[in-house]
Parts: sequence; C-alpha cells; structure tokens
Amino acid sequence: MKRIYQGKTKDVYEKEDGTIRLMFKDEMTGKDGVFDPGENQVGLTVEGSGRSGLKVSQYFFELLNQAGIQTHFLAADLEEKSMDVKKAVVFGQGLEVICRYKAVGSFIRRYADYIESGADLNGYVEITIKDDERQDPFISKDALVLLGILSEAEYDLIKEQTKRICDLIKEELATKGLTLYDIKLEFGRGEKPGEIMLIDELSGGNMRVFNGEESVYPLDLETYLF
Amino acid sequence: MKRIYQGKTKDVYEKEDGTIRLMFKDEMTGKDGVFDPGENQVGLTVEGSGRSGLKVSQYFFELLNQAGIQTHFLAADLEEKSMDVKKAVVFGQGLEVICRYKAVGSFIRRYADYIESGADLNGYVEITIKDDERQDPFISKDALVLLGILSEAEYDLIKEQTKRICDLIKEELATKGLTLYDIKLEFGRGEKPGEIMLIDELSGGNMRVFNGEESVYPLDLETYLF
Repeated sequence: MKRIYQGKTKDVYEKEDGTIRLMFKDEMTGKDGVFDPGENQVGLTVEGSGRSGLKVSQYFFELLNQAGIQTHFLAADLEEKSMDVKKAVVFGQGLEVICRYKAVGSFIRRYADYIESGADLNGYVEITIKDDERQDPFISKDALVLLGILSEAEYDLIKEQTKRICDLIKEELATKGLTLYDIKLEFGRGEKPGEIMLIDELSGGNMRVFNGEESVYPLDLETYLF
Repeated sequence: MKRIYQGKTKDVYEKEDGTIRLMFKDEMTGKDGVFDPGENQVGLTVEGSGRSGLKVSQYFFELLNQAGIQTHFLAADLEEKSMDVKKAVVFGQGLEVICRYKAVGSFIRRYADYIESGADLNGYVEITIKDDERQDPFISKDALVLLGILSEAEYDLIKEQTKRICDLIKEELATKGLTLYDIKLEFGRGEKPGEIMLIDELSGGNMRVFNGEESVYPLDLETYLF
C-alpha cells in the first residue's frame, strides 16, 4: 500500500488490488481556531475528529448507496480511521459542488443586496474550483465547459445528482430534528467510461447543520445520528 | 428636464417627452490613474473623454441599430456631450454582461490554473452584479433566476444578444486592424412588455482593444474609427 496524496484532512493510499484507502486525520478546516467548511486552511486539530468524520461519512454513504446513487464508498474501518473507496479522478484540479438550502456563508457575502441572510434557497447548486491561492473561485457551467473541466452533459448530471444526494441528506437530517443549511460535495470520474460518482467524505465538516436556531458543531453531528 | 441619476461617468436626465438624456462626463473608471474597465472607482479625469466616449458609442449604436438589434439609442449631440435614449429599467441594481474573446483581466485572475493568459475564449459570456461594495460579484444563471433578477428566458436572450452584438463589434474593429479582447455590456427592460435592449454606452471605456501587441488606450479608439 503506497501513499499517493497527503491532504489537509486525509491521506490517500493505493492498495494492492487497485482500490484506494483514505486515512482520516484529526484536522479540520477553519480559520483562527473556528470551524468553517468554506475555509481552505487547516484551522484546528481536534482529538477524535477523524473517527467522527468517518463514522458520519459511512452513515451517509451507506444511505446513498442504498438509494442507488453512484458513490466511491466501499467500506469503513472505524478503529483504523480508514475508508476504502473506488479509484476516481477529480475534474481538473478538483471541484467543490455546493448545494444551498439557506442563504448563508459566501452566498450571502456575494448577494446580500438581493436576499436576506437565512432565506430559503431550495437546493441551489453552484460550483467552485479548488484553488487555495485564489480562494476557490466560483465558476459557471459555460466556463467549466470552455476550460475543458466538464462537458455540458457532465455538468448537468452532476447538478442533478447533487440535488438528489443533498435532498436525501437533508431529509435524513430532518428525521433527527436537524436543518441542513448548505453542504459541499466532490465528484470524480470512475474507471468505467462515463462513470461519475460522489467521492471525498460526507461529514459534519462538509455541511452547515442547525438544530433550531443553534449551529451544530461538526463533531457533534454524530451524537444526533446514532 | 430633471436629473434622475448621477453616475460615475454619466448623469441621467428625464426629458419632458419621457425619453432620457445621458450627459457624458470627463471621468473614466480605473485605479491609481490607470484605466481599467473592470474597476469601479473613478480613477482619472481626462479632458475630452466624455465627447470621445459619446462619439464612439454613437458609431457602434448606429451599427447595431442598422443590424436590427434592440438598443436604447435614439440620437447623439457631440457638442452638448449628450445621448438621447429610450427609457429602460436595469435588472436588479444593474448587471454587467461581459463577453470575452481573450483570457485576460478577472477571468485569468480566477482561472489561471486552467488557461494561459491571452488564450482565445471565442465570445464566452458571463455576468456580474453591479455592487461596488462587494466588487461586482460574478453570478450564475441559476442564481440570477433564484434571486428574481432575470428569468431563464431573459438570461438566454441576453446571452444570445450579447454574443451577436459583440461579434459585430469585434468584426467592425477587425476591419480597422484592431482585436477585441473583451467588452462589457449592460441591458435593460424597455417600456413595452418583454422588451429587452442594450443600454448604457459602447465606448473604449467598455472594452479592451489591442492593435497587434499594443493595448489601445480607450480615448484613442476614435482615431481608428473615423
């Protein structure tokens, strides 16, 4: 098994059989010690956050796989803090696909002249390119196609899958009394021709969740699910 | 005739007959004394720039009107530095519709990881919302529709019209030996139901034009046209 990538919150290994093992770390994205899923920096190290993120990811990936959605998830080992996944290649240098149910975060920072903070957005989907240096710039469908990052058909498929996945997660959270404000996903191309699947993780660190008026701290999300 | 708006580069008056008179000023957008059509600040005052912008605008609006494109242009008076136009209402608090033929300016600042500076973009269209405080954030079709700024049909029409208008301007400039890099337009709703037209001005201050490897200073554009 050889390490092929060292990420901010996960390391990536390739196994002998060609599948991939993600090793979760106890680092979370944020700024000045405060968690922010929209941040690029590693802002804090929290004992147990890797295992918690993995446990929540496993929960949602199993839910999605049961619903027939294409994901990279194969199996998880909580003791080892590892997740085995199918091999996938990201689009360009990686895209973040954001689905928004409430106008908060960077959406409200951009469009505050047109909408109240916290207003309903009904699963609006937008994409940013992963680029720490340029702070993950927002990109349109036309620009993604123009730059050869996605085809039109891939964009449409990803947008439709994102809405479906996030609606399922939103509904699941609602059964626990929680409200999903927004969530970011990542997709990749699989080894079969035309195969596109949900990759990365699906934990509290990828979403803003509220319990009534109170923000749910990412590491506390598991206490609501189990 | 009463003044209804004071802009960075133009003042706007309403005439007795309900049409609008734009009075061009000698201010240009830029930063630290250097012209930049993407800037929001008034960066410099140049004697004669109002008249020059008007003369070039008249030239292009007449070209477009002859091609059957809906514009707000009615007449120009170079002595008075005024342009008479049809009444129109901007979308939201105003949109800037950018058509790009070369990857320069904010496009390359955002996507430099994916494209070489100066590469061909073939008339790629994108929209920003006018918001000086937030530096004119980029906005997608979906967000424009979601925020009630444009309908889907209006977006598609504006994108198609933009491409048509800018291709005509690009071809016209080519006959003068000039290359259009990018250009920003503004559209508005007219008084008739469903009427959408090109508004604002169409001068050197709205476009980046090159003569070979040399950038054409906005005020010099008229010397190539007449």
